[in-house]
Amino acid sequence: MWGEGRHEQSQPDVAERYPSGMHGAVADAVRAHLSDVDVRTAVLDDPDQGLPDDVLEATDVLTWWGHSAHAEVEDKLVDRVHERVLAGMGLLVLHSAHHSKIFRRLMGTTCNLLWRNEGDRELVWTVDPTHPLAAGVPSPIVLEQHEMYGEFFDIPVPDELVFVSSFSGGEVFRSGCTFRRGAGRIVYFSPGDQDYPIYHHPDVRRVIANAVAWCAPQTPLPGLARVDRADTGWFER
Amino acid sequence: MWGEGRHEQSQPDVAERYPSGMHGAVADAVRAHLSDVDVRTAVLDDPDQGLPDDVLEATDVLTWWGHSAHAEVEDKLVDRVHERVLAGMGLLVLHSAHHSKIFRRLMGTTCNLLWRNEGDRELVWTVDPTHPLAAGVPSPIVLEQHEMYGEFFDIPVPDELVFVSSFSGGEVFRSGCTFRRGAGRIVYFSPGDQDYPIYHHPDVRRVIANAVAWCAPQTPLPGLARVDRADTGWFER
Amino acid sequence: MWGEGRHEQSQPDVAERYPSGMHGAVADAVRAHLSDVDVRTAVLDDPDQGLPDDVLEATDVLTWWGHSAHAEVEDKLVDRVHERVLAGMGLLVLHSAHHSKIFRRLMGTTCNLLWRNEGDRELVWTVDPTHPLAAGVPSPIVLEQHEMYGEFFDIPVPDELVFVSSFSGGEVFRSGCTFRRGAGRIVYFSPGDQDYPIYHHPDVRRVIANAVAWCAPQTPLPGLARVDRADTGWFER
Amino acid sequence: MWGEGRHEQSQPDVAERYPSGMHGAVADAVRAHLSDVDVRTAVLDDPDQGLPDDVLEATDVLTWWGHSAHAEVEDKLVDRVHERVLAGMGLLVLHSAHHSKIFRRLMGTTCNLLWRNEGDRELVWTVDPTHPLAAGVPSPIVLEQHEMYGEFFDIPVPDELVFVSSFSGGEVFRSGCTFRRGAGRIVYFSPGDQDYPIYHHPDVRRVIANAVAWCAPQTPLPGLARVDRADTGWFER
Repeated sequence: MWGEGRHEQSQPDVAERYPSGMHGAVADAVRAHLSDVDVRTAVLDDPDQGLPDDVLEATDVLTWWGHSAHAEVEDKLVDRVHERVLAGMGLLVLHSAHHSKIFRRLMGTTCNLLWRNEGDRELVWTVDPTHPLAAGVPSPIVLEQHEMYGEFFDIPVPDELVFVSSFSGGEVFRSGCTFRRGAGRIVYFSPGDQDYPIYHHPDVRRVIANAVAWCAPQTPLPGLARVDRADTGWFER
Repeated sequence: MWGEGRHEQSQPDVAERYPSGMHGAVADAVRAHLSDVDVRTAVLDDPDQGLPDDVLEATDVLTWWGHSAHAEVEDKLVDRVHERVLAGMGLLVLHSAHHSKIFRRLMGTTCNLLWRNEGDRELVWTVDPTHPLAAGVPSPIVLEQHEMYGEFFDIPVPDELVFVSSFSGGEVFRSGCTFRRGAGRIVYFSPGDQDYPIYHHPDVRRVIANAVAWCAPQTPLPGLARVDRADTGWFER
Repeated sequence: MWGEGRHEQSQPDVAERYPSGMHGAVADAVRAHLSDVDVRTAVLDDPDQGLPDDVLEATDVLTWWGHSAHAEVEDKLVDRVHERVLAGMGLLVLHSAHHSKIFRRLMGTTCNLLWRNEGDRELVWTVDPTHPLAAGVPSPIVLEQHEMYGEFFDIPVPDELVFVSSFSGGEVFRSGCTFRRGAGRIVYFSPGDQDYPIYHHPDVRRVIANAVAWCAPQTPLPGLARVDRADTGWFER
Repeated sequence: MWGEGRHEQSQPDVAERYPSGMHGAVADAVRAHLSDVDVRTAVLDDPDQGLPDDVLEATDVLTWWGHSAHAEVEDKLVDRVHERVLAGMGLLVLHSAHHSKIFRRLMGTTCNLLWRNEGDRELVWTVDPTHPLAAGVPSPIVLEQHEMYGEFFDIPVPDELVFVSSFSGGEVFRSGCTFRRGAGRIVYFSPGDQDYPIYHHPDVRRVIANAVAWCAPQTPLPGLARVDRADTGWFER
């Protein structure tokens, strides 16, 4: 559970809202719903920006929250996370991490969106009731106050669209999306601004745990075998 | 441009709102934007329910609006329209035709949705700016008053999601969707309740024309050729 | 595990190949890979065509193999299976069941395809290595001899395309596809002609078990709650 | 019509096969099928690598063929092409350009694939007969000899899958795919190795022209308007 961990230092209200950090609240949500999962947290200001090689290699699913310090994440770390996702590691991208280097790298687009932080009510509607992301939560999930994120959200067409939100101002947003890249599964879930206690909301916590479970790699990863003229060495991977 | 044509008879306000019928307003929209298109209208109470064989055979794109008399549409007509769509005829399904026999037949689901007719403001947001359906209209299209249609909308996952609407009550709706079935293209576009002058709205008229143009069959339809063991008679179509 | 069960009666070679019926072989595959699953079999010639109400109500995932007797399946049974799928029951459609009434009802298309029964080698390639359907099997799965099923396969665009097959004659086929309809998940998997021992192939058995696991309904099914003006009674489901 | 233009210099057989360059053959295909289109060609060894700012700004659809010199394309040119695609320019990516910097940037994946250059017969099957890419060509298109490209092709799930190829060796490949990124449309079409006269094949030429037409930007591009609290300055684009 990777967090930028800066707002907790610079804004007393955030530190008070999230005493163990936003990443800590995300970790709690996963622990609360998923047994037999080994959950660790890391932040930008940790050594190796929290993700030394051995940690990254041992990670099945990485969650990513960032906002004010996207530019400080080193490109070589982004390269390594990118490789890991393509090799099968799951990635849950949260809220303002829509503008993180890793998400933009994986999407190939600007990932721009509309936004306005005026405490709109957000309703998160399920549009795919067959999807594990939506298991156990009502439709809509009601967030009494949240930052508005609106369309056009400049992402590739999601492989699966699970949640669509509305806001008091009338905007809509594709707030729960999945993507496959290489052997890896990616979820983008937009709730989670630092100015609101979103990660204490029971339905949001359930979706986070659902997403982590859904992102986990298949075991074993499907292999790619050779047929026929295997001796010609054409197998590239 | 097929219309049920009943509300225009039973409700004076609808007749006043649409002097040439709702189908007439749809036809006007198409004529206004697409030159070189031969536009005809038909209604349920016409002979052969408006669609005798020769007319249907000569139709490249059919638009369908119905509401109170879905059950009166004969199954054999639904069969013929179904066959025509699979053979390549375009179909634009409008508003309450979500519950028409032909749409349910093509979708394989209930096509149920939430609804409430209290004059909500509807905002129709473009979520796919590359799509011809959205050409030339603002995002959002603003409908000051309209019936609310909300999720969950029980349709298959659309092949393309172009518009998502919000409503004053906070609901969201996948209001512009495309589907391919057989060799045919289908658009569902939800604006168009009889109680509001929606089909006089310039942006809605533009989308209707865009949809008709997009639905038109490819000429010539892609053929399916035989290779190799064609003599074994395995070609089925 | 529902089977038509007729070829086993009329063709001694099929009875010899599948002593417990083709449905029996499918059931064995599921039992071999999924513990804690209660597997039952049923055939067309059983009372109530094998699926009385109480059995259908107690079924989480239904597998369907049919070929020569699609027309004998009663429409009212198809209605009930259709309702159950839309309510969340998983459905695995096997091989020649592409032409079953229930699959055509759910798809809304002819589900026609090319075919030729001359013992082509079929290679089943994974095109989505993130998908649970493909877990634990090589790419390609090699079927030394099988009936050819080829494109154009007249289905809606699958929600997920997992397997694509090639055949000795040069044809290709979307052989592993998923679809969501209502609250239900559907898999179509094409291997399994009665003239070949396909359901004894270890990789095919694994895919069948993967598919059954993937199709199982979410527990609990996501609910749809009311917001705001719930008193207006607009909630329809 | 951008071409790397190197094989034509280093391999006499390629120069003989394509006297006006491979890009010249692509340009001929477009001119032959699309009237009222202003077609220009450019190569890597032209000033500004063939794409100075004014040329790129004036380009509605860019076609890209490269193979041996992907690394020589300057990153700042890739940046500019990327921006143009997101702003609405169409992009047709041909054959070995699967490994071009621009395609990998837009896809976010390795774009790796299997390959073997032994003159396999390739059959290009249409799996979406409603798509304009497939208009006017048989299914399959028969390429008597071509390089094999096979799955797993490490791309995001295409928005539309139009062609699937088989090869003599038994491999399959998603050979005609579309993607939307930002306001731009992208087509990947795999036929076109320098060692074979593929771009003289009439069906391939037709698909190239179809793709160029399909990629062209909507005019005018859909706008994004403000609603409600526009004064808060939240509009980002």
